Amino acid sequence: MSFTISAPVMQAPAADRLEIRDRAVIEVDDRGVITAMEDAASGQGRSLAAASRDHHEVPAGHVLIPGLVDTHCHAPQWPQLGTRLDVPLEDWLFRYTFPLEARYADLDFARPVWADLVAGLLAHGTTTAVFYASQDRAATTALAEAVASGGQRAWVGRVAMDHPEGTPPYYRDASAEDGIQQSARSISEIRAVDAGRGRVAPIVTPRFTPACTDELLRGLGALAAAEDVLVQTHCSESNWAHQYNLDRYGMTDATALDGFGLLRPGTVLAHANHVTDADADLLVQRGSGIAHCPLSNAYFSNAVLPVRRLVGKGVRMGLGTDVSGGASPSLLHNAHDAVTVSRMLEDGVDPTRTAGPDRGVPGTRIDTTFAFWLATKGGADLLGAPIGLLEPGRRFDAVLVDTASRRGSLRTWPGIDTPERVFEKVVRLAAPADITDVWVDGRRVAGSGAGEGAGEGAGEGAGPA
Amino acid sequence: MSFTISAPVMQAPAADRLEIRDRAVIEVDDRGVITAMEDAASGQGRSLAAASRDHHEVPAGHVLIPGLVDTHCHAPQWPQLGTRLDVPLEDWLFRYTFPLEARYADLDFARPVWADLVAGLLAHGTTTAVFYASQDRAATTALAEAVASGGQRAWVGRVAMDHPEGTPPYYRDASAEDGIQQSARSISEIRAVDAGRGRVAPIVTPRFTPACTDELLRGLGALAAAEDVLVQTHCSESNWAHQYNLDRYGMTDATALDGFGLLRPGTVLAHANHVTDADADLLVQRGSGIAHCPLSNAYFSNAVLPVRRLVGKGVRMGLGTDVSGGASPSLLHNAHDAVTVSRMLEDGVDPTRTAGPDRGVPGTRIDTTFAFWLATKGGADLLGAPIGLLEPGRRFDAVLVDTASRRGSLRTWPGIDTPERVFEKVVRLAAPADITDVWVDGRRVAGSGAGEGAGEGAGEGAGPA
Repeated sequence: MSFTISAPVMQAPAADRLEIRDRAVIEVDDRGVITAMEDAASGQGRSLAAASRDHHEVPAGHVLIPGLVDTHCHAPQWPQLGTRLDVPLEDWLFRYTFPLEARYADLDFARPVWADLVAGLLAHGTTTAVFYASQDRAATTALAEAVASGGQRAWVGRVAMDHPEGTPPYYRDASAEDGIQQSARSISEIRAVDAGRGRVAPIVTPRFTPACTDELLRGLGALAAAEDVLVQTHCSESNWAHQYNLDRYGMTDATALDGFGLLRPGTVLAHANHVTDADADLLVQRGSGIAHCPLSNAYFSNAVLPVRRLVGKGVRMGLGTDVSGGASPSLLHNAHDAVTVSRMLEDGVDPTRTAGPDRGVPGTRIDTTFAFWLATKGGADLLGAPIGLLEPGRRFDAVLVDTASRRGSLRTWPGIDTPERVFEKVVRLAAPADITDVWVDGRRVAGSGAGEGAGEGAGEGAGPA
Repeated sequence: MSFTISAPVMQAPAADRLEIRDRAVIEVDDRGVITAMEDAASGQGRSLAAASRDHHEVPAGHVLIPGLVDTHCHAPQWPQLGTRLDVPLEDWLFRYTFPLEARYADLDFARPVWADLVAGLLAHGTTTAVFYASQDRAATTALAEAVASGGQRAWVGRVAMDHPEGTPPYYRDASAEDGIQQSARSISEIRAVDAGRGRVAPIVTPRFTPACTDELLRGLGALAAAEDVLVQTHCSESNWAHQYNLDRYGMTDATALDGFGLLRPGTVLAHANHVTDADADLLVQRGSGIAHCPLSNAYFSNAVLPVRRLVGKGVRMGLGTDVSGGASPSLLHNAHDAVTVSRMLEDGVDPTRTAGPDRGVPGTRIDTTFAFWLATKGGADLLGAPIGLLEPGRRFDAVLVDTASRRGSLRTWPGIDTPERVFEKVVRLAAPADITDVWVDGRRVAGSGAGEGAGEGAGEGAGPA
């Protein structure tokens, strides 16, 4: 069922451009596609609203933003969110993370976590997630089912990992061949779950080179090409991971991954803090990109991703929470953190050094508009999906924020806040308590309802995104 | 009215010690002082509960922590929280902050902001705040009234600032003499508001040396000594502020402040990122300390405070939000940020540098226990107040967190989370939605009520803290 909604809109069509519309009327068709968008005060806007058989006006103080796109989220690490950040990456995996992830072979353990994860992310306004699921295929399919059931948009990847040194015996593919076969079957199973709705898609997911043999990596590259699906993996996340690849391949992992056919359009490389300039050029050539995970930068990456420089070179980039390497599931909060860590990269951290290039890296800061663009259209462009911005032709994936609720930290003050300041506050301070409605493909899938029921009656019939 | 409460307790008696009690019975007298605390499973604990005429058992899944102590908060900057972090400190003051602060001379503007600020901080579990109020004396007194009315504990400081170059004409004391007199009158007025309850106290507040003449600074040092009140100011916050003092005095601001009699026991120096080793030794000698404001470090300080090294030298230290130089009013979130920025100090930020001492400052990280200690007992010790820890003899300033509400980001998983992990999650993820009860001096002053009414009937009669 189609509807129209009238609301103030704030969004970032580009990294350096904030678009604020006092109030726009948006028309959404029964597939969840935006078919028209006009200023409410204009003749066209008034006509749109007048012609609608299901029109909704959001109350004053509410702001509509595009749905948030989490380009890197480890679904099975949800129960340890906020903890266990005390050891380096390579220890963290074996001590905490692999044992937890292995538990998902028990579907009675997996299913309630998946359901809570999807509900929790939607409550934060994450309309799209790119998930690392489990090495276990059945658990991975169950995650796809939870996503479909919750109404979220997601790419779900069975985690392939077979290297006898980089994985523990209890959480490992039996062989490279087995890893490729399981990944192929997982693609079919996830497609069956989606049933043509185009909201849940498979993604080929070699964990990272230290956990994979060359045979597995080569086979997954071929699988991605044969099935024409996206690829995600980790890249140059830490000193250790970066050096590991130089030792194993005599080249960076970005270059090695390319040799295995894994750098494809839309390939999501998580972290990538230590990529070289040559790596960056290669990513641009291939149409691959980076999931920037600002908070986990502080805990596992040993450095801050030079976001502005890489985006300036043309590298595609989205934002990721890195649940649970990052401690927050909120993409808005991660956008705030992205600004913060960019400021620390610019100024440096050690007060005993001379200010300037001896302490930091001048010219590297980003602002809240840039960070919000990463969390929305940047991620959408990386994934090649028609989301991340509210405009005709794109899906109505959207989040309504009550800036006047005062239920959390967010406050606005009439007469003091310009619309630009309200936008900054939403990025830095909005929490689930302030998010009243969340839509995916025009369907209302979370929230308490200030949207007044828009999209409540929307059907299942969206075509592939 | 006295009461007993039975709850799991998590707290940090020292920077390196986390104390977790499965369930303790705490007895609180009618002045709000803890008179006994015993394990609930022990004979003494059972006796305490049995003998109580007003006993409360908090439901499963709830955790009691000491009330949080914000050692640096600019009350009039509350409306710009989360915004305007785009220019250096010296520009930020003149462009955004002084114009906003000057508006509080209008009490009709000031009073609703003060009321919302106090309610907002209490909802975050901030039972004690050290406020910079306004240069305007009446507005400062109105803040003390809002604090008293809200039931918060606070030090409230009228901001003295008279320097013709470091302040704008519209927001400046008429002269040094006027600044000293206004500050003296403000002390009397705040004491009158408190009326002997011992919850709202004055604090002498020279803004920072660039905003003050030497005559004003000297007079305020004498005033603090004469009235025996605490002092707060800013110290070596940024490259610019640090260099300013070297140029003006030929010495650091810490040393200069000492010469004016302003480094006293309990003096709170905000930020202090650029203090020297000699400055640190001086602080230890004087019993003065630092309000560490981790988030504003990234925006205004141009470096990260080396917390571990300074605390190791014996410098007193608490945590501060620096509203609005920091973008979050939550001390728990600031504790999380304190861990994060310490990790960035340790590892460094620039991936093009060689890992180790060329990139970061090895050995400087802190963990969540250390950060929580800063937010509670560290701050309490800096201020010399019997709060920050739940133990007999101290005030029952406490916060009850529902770890199972799932209203925000906080999640706990029976069978996965150890109590230590629950503690980490509370620090990193708890939000107002998860905070059900807040007590100050044994009086319940905020929250939805899982504490089942403990302290509801508590009177006004606490002696001076």
